[in-house]
Amino acid sequence: MLICGIDPGIGRCGYALVELTDGNVKVLSYGCLETPSLLSTAERLYVLHQRLQEVLACGAEVLALEALFFNKNARTAVNVAQARGVVLLAAAERGIPVAEYTPPEVKQAVVGYGRAEKRQVQEMLRRSFGLPDLPKPDDAADALAVALCHAQVARFTERTRQGGEKPV
Amino acid sequence: MLICGIDPGIGRCGYALVELTDGNVKVLSYGCLETPSLLSTAERLYVLHQRLQEVLACGAEVLALEALFFNKNARTAVNVAQARGVVLLAAAERGIPVAEYTPPEVKQAVVGYGRAEKRQVQEMLRRSFGLPDLPKPDDAADALAVALCHAQVARFTERTRQGGEKPV
Repeated sequence: MLICGIDPGIGRCGYALVELTDGNVKVLSYGCLETPSLLSTAERLYVLHQRLQEVLACGAEVLALEALFFNKNARTAVNVAQARGVVLLAAAERGIPVAEYTPPEVKQAVVGYGRAEKRQVQEMLRRSFGLPDLPKPDDAADALAVALCHAQVARFTERTRQGGEKPV
Repeated sequence: MLICGIDPGIGRCGYALVELTDGNVKVLSYGCLETPSLLSTAERLYVLHQRLQEVLACGAEVLALEALFFNKNARTAVNVAQARGVVLLAAAERGIPVAEYTPPEVKQAVVGYGRAEKRQVQEMLRRSFGLPDLPKPDDAADALAVALCHAQVARFTERTRQGGEKPV
């Protein structure tokens, strides 16, 4: 299963492509889709949409992203939500299902503790994917985290399903 | 100049097509683009995007919409901002410039008073466009209002420009 994790943003949108095969996870690529700050918001969303289409075209089967909560800077929140709308659209255009996880769910799945620090999450990502260093920048690391979260959930679901099918 | 006013929303997105010719405004059509509530958010954004493309395909030269402020229900705000992202994308895809106005600017332009009531705005829309009744529903009326606001601004700009060119 090819999972695409996304951390939406208009200036910098984190993405991660993670393959789950026979219970093993492998990172194929991760990084940031950036849009020039000189462009208008609409133009930046246009660039983002094109980049997202390129990322999803690699055969992503599911898109995982964090549920959005508004509590901080309202202006940033509007920009993130607008970018998120374009991310969801890009998934729907390819008929890819979307899985959403709250930040504590992501931390719980990655670190085993729902209130883990950012650094702990990054260290666990490094180990899980066998990366030489902590994944950077933060947006890319967040995308990796939500992709790994979905992989863990899919792995668990698969195991439970297999268990249920066993003869007793 | 063909102006498309939009009041973004995921369940119901208001739109209005207004023609400004020689200082006169005429409404060509207005209404709501609705998306089935049984669909997922991503699927609803997909349907909305398609409907928007149809509306803009009529030759809209500018897209006018209200600037977004977050102060009420955060969940609604996320949904509106996500839909707004898709609206901005649709404009950029057609190379149509986007004009944003704050709610007081819209009221000021339509009624001449930045703190006008919704009913006053609708009554002024009815008169300005020669409609038989108050425009309904609210989302469509809001789209008409922001389109009329842009028409007023464009009219004023045009007049000022012409005035500036006059020999003194």
